Amino acid sequence: MQNWKLTLTYDGTEYHGWQVQPGLCTVQGELQQALAQIVGESPLPQGSGRTDAGVHALGQVASLELACPIPADNLKRALNRILPASIRVLKAEVVEANFHARHSARAKTYEYRIFCGAVCSPFLARYVHVCRWPLDLERMQKAAQQIVGEHDFRSFAASDPELRQREKDGNEATGKELGTVRSILTSEWQEETGELLIYRVCGSGFLHHMVRNLVGTMLEIGRGQFAGDAMRKILLARSRAAAGPTAPACGLFLQAVYYDASARTKETEPAR
Amino acid sequence: MQNWKLTLTYDGTEYHGWQVQPGLCTVQGELQQALAQIVGESPLPQGSGRTDAGVHALGQVASLELACPIPADNLKRALNRILPASIRVLKAEVVEANFHARHSARAKTYEYRIFCGAVCSPFLARYVHVCRWPLDLERMQKAAQQIVGEHDFRSFAASDPELRQREKDGNEATGKELGTVRSILTSEWQEETGELLIYRVCGSGFLHHMVRNLVGTMLEIGRGQFAGDAMRKILLARSRAAAGPTAPACGLFLQAVYYDASARTKETEPAR
Repeated sequence: MQNWKLTLTYDGTEYHGWQVQPGLCTVQGELQQALAQIVGESPLPQGSGRTDAGVHALGQVASLELACPIPADNLKRALNRILPASIRVLKAEVVEANFHARHSARAKTYEYRIFCGAVCSPFLARYVHVCRWPLDLERMQKAAQQIVGEHDFRSFAASDPELRQREKDGNEATGKELGTVRSILTSEWQEETGELLIYRVCGSGFLHHMVRNLVGTMLEIGRGQFAGDAMRKILLARSRAAAGPTAPACGLFLQAVYYDASARTKETEPAR
Repeated sequence: MQNWKLTLTYDGTEYHGWQVQPGLCTVQGELQQALAQIVGESPLPQGSGRTDAGVHALGQVASLELACPIPADNLKRALNRILPASIRVLKAEVVEANFHARHSARAKTYEYRIFCGAVCSPFLARYVHVCRWPLDLERMQKAAQQIVGEHDFRSFAASDPELRQREKDGNEATGKELGTVRSILTSEWQEETGELLIYRVCGSGFLHHMVRNLVGTMLEIGRGQFAGDAMRKILLARSRAAAGPTAPACGLFLQAVYYDASARTKETEPAR
């Protein structure tokens, strides 16, 4: 058996997210089917994390084991021939047996793209969130800075059944106990053009919906619905109700996943 | 009644072309429905020409008459609120009563985008034709030059029932009699990046499938299947069978339509 690491980019618009679901079109499912066609084996590729329906990837990473001794370039070429054009394999590498796309991941970068001009090109519309409010970028930049470091991000986690159950079990559980503490390394907004704002965040890991909830909250700060220093208070509240709405999936890109040097992933160029 | 000129951009991927067809989703149909919602009138907007299923537009022009005295900015904003994000109105103007998007058009520019790298980004794939052959750009450039001027483009016209009937009626009809003579003002290839080739052609008018047939033929020349001077011979042959295949719709963009100064359309920036 050989252990493989695949680096993938996909347009998530027409997929029900990464994870295989019966009867639905998913990225993991497409990849599994393509592998079956090529090597006659259909291991379930393990992603670095699940991207939600409609979320895109510039550098998602998946790992899987194959018995077939296929050369890396052939596997990449064959996958790109079979997969739909909305999913591309950027790299196929044989890695050490203990590499696992999720468990071995050290950090991830996401970016979130916001169009704030008057008329959004139809060729961009699938890949941005169109924001109709005037935004104060300076306020949003300050808010972005306030999440850098180790924090309990419970306020920004989707209130999934799993988290709710853990909260019940733990009663007044701390973030450490609930598993809602994360380290953010960088968090900043960039004005790409006058009409396009990009938020980039790199962290040790992210809770479900965390980036979209952070962006939804910063947009409220940017348009003056929340106070300029709201971010700190929302972190302390440790309640989903304290944060802003979840920003739409279409603006979110998993940009890159980082591993130790033995299995490092290069950053891919963001698509425009 | 006021006569309106609308400049439109659209991602044609999911439309059955410009023209209204019963039960199918078309750009003209979406526009007509949106107008009905806004002003309670539903004139059929006249396009500068019909774009085929899957063909995109950066600057399509449509004209229509409305009784409702709505300010131009309001009409543009309202249309962009109601239309799907894949169709945008770039400009809405009241023009002289005799302006007609098709009859008044003096020239048009199309562009055709070809991706010739190894792996095409999923964010580009809907808007290019992926060509898997190595291409000799110099040969293609020479071929493009050979169509500049006034020629009978019968070899590059789709063999539609209408043209076949005209051919039957006219027996050995000349291009003038058949209406297959067109003037090409500029025709050239540009290497946008090492991986993206763009063909731009400006002419007095274009026959059905003409740009896609020209591109399909130049690709055959570029990959060495047709001789370097094939273009001239194919023009003289006056037969669809002499030319190459029709290049796919997804690479084609109607870039701009030109009118006399009284109703001039600005070129729109090509989307990347």
